[in-house]
Amino acid sequence: MDMVEDVLAGRVRGIARMMSRAEAGGGDCRAALAEIYRHTGRAHVVGLTGVPGSGKSVLARVLARAIRASGRKVGIVAVDPSSPFSGGAILGDRVRMTGLSGDPGVFIRSMATHGAVGGLARASLDSVDILDAAGFDMVVVETVGVGQDEVDILQAAHTVVVLSAPGLGDDIQAIKAGLLEIADIHVVSKCDRADANRTLIDLQGMLTLGVAGGDAWQVPVLPTSAENDEGIGDLLAAIDAHRAHLEDSGGIALRRRRIAETRILGIAEDIVRTRFAGRHDGRLAGLLDRVMAREVDPYAAAMDMLAASRED
Amino acid sequence: MDMVEDVLAGRVRGIARMMSRAEAGGGDCRAALAEIYRHTGRAHVVGLTGVPGSGKSVLARVLARAIRASGRKVGIVAVDPSSPFSGGAILGDRVRMTGLSGDPGVFIRSMATHGAVGGLARASLDSVDILDAAGFDMVVVETVGVGQDEVDILQAAHTVVVLSAPGLGDDIQAIKAGLLEIADIHVVSKCDRADANRTLIDLQGMLTLGVAGGDAWQVPVLPTSAENDEGIGDLLAAIDAHRAHLEDSGGIALRRRRIAETRILGIAEDIVRTRFAGRHDGRLAGLLDRVMAREVDPYAAAMDMLAASRED
Repeated sequence: MDMVEDVLAGRVRGIARMMSRAEAGGGDCRAALAEIYRHTGRAHVVGLTGVPGSGKSVLARVLARAIRASGRKVGIVAVDPSSPFSGGAILGDRVRMTGLSGDPGVFIRSMATHGAVGGLARASLDSVDILDAAGFDMVVVETVGVGQDEVDILQAAHTVVVLSAPGLGDDIQAIKAGLLEIADIHVVSKCDRADANRTLIDLQGMLTLGVAGGDAWQVPVLPTSAENDEGIGDLLAAIDAHRAHLEDSGGIALRRRRIAETRILGIAEDIVRTRFAGRHDGRLAGLLDRVMAREVDPYAAAMDMLAASRED
Repeated sequence: MDMVEDVLAGRVRGIARMMSRAEAGGGDCRAALAEIYRHTGRAHVVGLTGVPGSGKSVLARVLARAIRASGRKVGIVAVDPSSPFSGGAILGDRVRMTGLSGDPGVFIRSMATHGAVGGLARASLDSVDILDAAGFDMVVVETVGVGQDEVDILQAAHTVVVLSAPGLGDDIQAIKAGLLEIADIHVVSKCDRADANRTLIDLQGMLTLGVAGGDAWQVPVLPTSAENDEGIGDLLAAIDAHRAHLEDSGGIALRRRRIAETRILGIAEDIVRTRFAGRHDGRLAGLLDRVMAREVDPYAAAMDMLAASRED
C-alpha cells in the first residue's frame, strides 16, 4: 500500500504513477483504488463541457489559476476521446503558458480513449478520486460531453459548467448536445467578440423558458474571455455559490446519490461490455454461436453473460 | 404453450396477445419467447429510420403494400418513444387509408416507451421475433433512430434504410443523427418537392466521399414520393438486392453476428439498469448508501450489482 500512502501524502510522482496504473485498468490496482476511494469526498468536482473550438481547455486552465489564487489546491482531468495520447507530458507547454508550472498545488492530467482499458468514464473518475484523496480541494474535469461515457463523467460532478462559444455555426451548442438540462452554470467564451452577445441573450432566453433548472438554483449565464482574463473570477464565485447552495438546500445529498448511481451503473456496463468484447473468452463466443443457431434465445444468453461477468 | 402454437400458426389474435405479454415484460412469458425465438431466422428484417416529419410512417405503410403486392406477408413494428400509446388500435385509421386493412398477410404493431417494461429495444425485437416465427416474410421496424435503444433496434435489422426529407432545416438529417455509417439504403422522401434534388445530390456527394459503405455493397440513394406512390418499387427492389448481396457475399453471417451481439448486450444492459432502478430491492439501495458512505468503492458495488442480477 506504499502507492496509496504516496497518494494520500499528496506526492506528485505517486499520484501520477497511481493514475497510470488505474488507466491501464489492471485488476492489480483495484484494491489500492478501493482504499483511495475511502479517503475521497472532500474535493468539489467541477464538470466542464463544451464543443471543440469553444476554448474549453484554456478556460479550464485560467479557472485553475483563479482557484489556486484563492489559496486552494486544484486538479484538472482533461478527457479527450479523440487523442491517442495519455499522461501529462504533452500538456507541458500549455501548463507553462498559464503560469501553473512547477506548483505542487496544481496537477493536470490528460486522459485519452486509447490509453484507457475498460471505459473512459471509469478511468477518468478514478483519477478524480486520486486527486480528491491526495488533498486537492477542487478538481475540474474537462470533456467534450458527447457520448454516454462523457455524459456519465459530467453526471459525476458536483457542479456542471457548460461552455458555449459564439460563431461556431450553431449559437447554443449546449442544446444541440442535449446538455442544457444538466448545466448548473452556463458560460459563454470569447466575449470580446461582437457576436457573443447574441449567444448570451439566446441562452438567457432558453433559461427563462424553463428548459433548465427545476430546483431553487438560478442557473447563471456568464460571459468570459480567457485571453483577457475577464469573467473568470465571476465563474469561480458562481461555482462556490453553487456549492454553498447544494449544501444549504440539502441538494448535496441528491447530487451525491446521482454521482454514486452514475458511477456504479457505468462500471457495471463497462464490465458487461468488456467481457463481451473479449472474444478470446470461449464461453461467450460459444454463447453467440448458440444464439445464431437458435439454440439459445438472446434473453437467456444475456443472463448467462451476466453470470460469466460475476465470475471475473 | 397454446400461446406459442397460436403464434406459429400465424393466428392474428395469438400474435397480438403474445406481443402484449412480451411488452409487459413479465418473466412469465420468457419461456414462450425462448420457444418462439427457436422458430425465427426466416424473415428479412428492414430497419427504417428518419427524423420526425420525414414521412417515415407513411413510407413504412406504402412499402408494406408493395411487399404484400409481391406476394409476401409483411409486418410493421412502429417504435414511437414519444407516444404513451401501445397496441394496434390507434393505427386503425392509417391502416385503412393505405388499403392494408383486413388482410391477414399484413400485421401492424405500434410500440411506445410507456408500455414497454425493461427496454424499448428488447420489447420491439421480441415483436419482430413473434412476426418472424408467425411466418411473416418481411418485417419493417420503424424508428426515429435517436438514443441507444433505437440505434440498437436498427443494428438488429438485416437491411437499414435511412430516410431524409427536404426542407427540414438540415438537409442531410442522417449525418446529424450519426446514422450515415449504418445505412444500407438511403431514401429521400417528398421528391415531388423542388428542393428534394439538393438533398439527393448532397447525399450522393457524401457517399462518394466514402463516408459510408466499406464492403462491396454500393449504397443507393433513392428518391420517393409516398403520396404519388413513386420510387416505392425501386426501394423494394433495392432491399431485395441488398438481401441477395448479403447472401451471395457471405456478409449475412457477419450481419447475423452483429444482430445477436446487439441483442444480447442490449438485454444485459437492460437487466442491469432495471435491477438498479428497482429501489424496492433493499440490497441495491443499501449498496448505494454504502458507496456514498465510502464503505464500498463503486467498482466493488458494480460487481456486487452484477451478482445480484444473476440471482434474478
